Amino acid sequence: MKQKTKFNAAILIIGNEILSGRTQDTNTSTIAQWLNLIGVKVNEVRVIPDIESIIIETVNHLRKVNNYVFTTGGIGPTHDDITAESISKAFNLEYKIHKEAFKILETYYKVGEFNEGRQKMAWMPSEANLILNPTSGAPGFNVENVFCLPGVPSILKSMLGGLKNKIVGGDPILSHTISLKTVESEIAKALTNVQNNNKDVEIGSYPFFQAGKLGVSIVIRSEDQLKIEKCSSEILDFIKKKKLEVVAR
Amino acid sequence: MKQKTKFNAAILIIGNEILSGRTQDTNTSTIAQWLNLIGVKVNEVRVIPDIESIIIETVNHLRKVNNYVFTTGGIGPTHDDITAESISKAFNLEYKIHKEAFKILETYYKVGEFNEGRQKMAWMPSEANLILNPTSGAPGFNVENVFCLPGVPSILKSMLGGLKNKIVGGDPILSHTISLKTVESEIAKALTNVQNNNKDVEIGSYPFFQAGKLGVSIVIRSEDQLKIEKCSSEILDFIKKKKLEVVAR
Repeated sequence: MKQKTKFNAAILIIGNEILSGRTQDTNTSTIAQWLNLIGVKVNEVRVIPDIESIIIETVNHLRKVNNYVFTTGGIGPTHDDITAESISKAFNLEYKIHKEAFKILETYYKVGEFNEGRQKMAWMPSEANLILNPTSGAPGFNVENVFCLPGVPSILKSMLGGLKNKIVGGDPILSHTISLKTVESEIAKALTNVQNNNKDVEIGSYPFFQAGKLGVSIVIRSEDQLKIEKCSSEILDFIKKKKLEVVAR
Repeated sequence: MKQKTKFNAAILIIGNEILSGRTQDTNTSTIAQWLNLIGVKVNEVRVIPDIESIIIETVNHLRKVNNYVFTTGGIGPTHDDITAESISKAFNLEYKIHKEAFKILETYYKVGEFNEGRQKMAWMPSEANLILNPTSGAPGFNVENVFCLPGVPSILKSMLGGLKNKIVGGDPILSHTISLKTVESEIAKALTNVQNNNKDVEIGSYPFFQAGKLGVSIVIRSEDQLKIEKCSSEILDFIKKKKLEVVAR
């Protein structure tokens, strides 16, 4: 099941609110889906607390073993927003006012409203490149292969478009889903055979229980449309033989 | 902001479907909230792919640095369900049929329906203890401090109750939320002062944009109700001085 994907990434969710269960992370799924389209595969996700030493250690590990690291959270104006300072330390860079970010924020806020809290959002590692924020002014930034985005999902989403030119990816990672009215154990053996015949395609099997319906979604993933089609036709073959009902494909 | 929490845990989400963004993980939040109630703090969450070597390496790291590890996913009947075999290897235990699990499954299914796929769900590390599954028969298991749960959220939820006797925790981790009609930068400085006065309490600030409302939720977390109350009253003091509107508390 090894893939030859050339570009990979880690997502690093920084925030006590996710670890406590108070907030449901949705940024992982947003970033991962966007990365699929530009041919970057997510290898790993980590959620860590707002603790400087842990952020530094984790960033320094992940940036060495992945082409890209995307962090979310901790770039706002309050005391628990320590991502920018931690990234500065991870890269041994000065943590200082980024002139362009300062200008953007100064222009964004009304005269007299660009207070100390808001000015904090212009503090970044000295070699940071800005990631523009069309929603709420305060930019994200990247240093080398580490891209720092906000935690608020709607703002994060609005900033991904502006990132495209900064990320080199491969062929889009394609997927095809076949949903069946069956249970996993019914198709387990046949699906294992298909996987063995198609070792470089990723085949996942996911039971679902929705609206009183019991079923299984088979998800085929590859960068190669022809490989997906071959795999898909082998799966449809055993579905036909077993007389299973396809509910969606 | 160091806490004296005595018991901590890592959550390990095993599944390509989360990394690809296809499936939104909700198990982290379910497990974390349940752990708060029994006084166990989640230190870290990782999401990793269905790859044996990665599962082994990650489990062996996490189980050494945390009191508990909770894995989700990969214990079903299909080819991509490799958690039980990987955990066996992580602990250097034989991967074999668990007699009690086999009996449970044999009784659960109708005569003639306990096929090869379903029998796979009785294969576990030789020293596994079962975690009963009141929803769909197939048990989870634990080896030492590693607890393996299924990926399907409704099934996982139904199994947590049966885990309670197996987990030793501390005092419940309490939290109090004060939601304000304001923006973070308005309260950043005052909130930093409160955090500095209350170093062993965790104070988080989270902007929200819901139903056209713009606001900030301040979340105070500690095992000590008195500390939460002291902190809360200091926050209410500055709210009053700043004439901010409390929308919920």
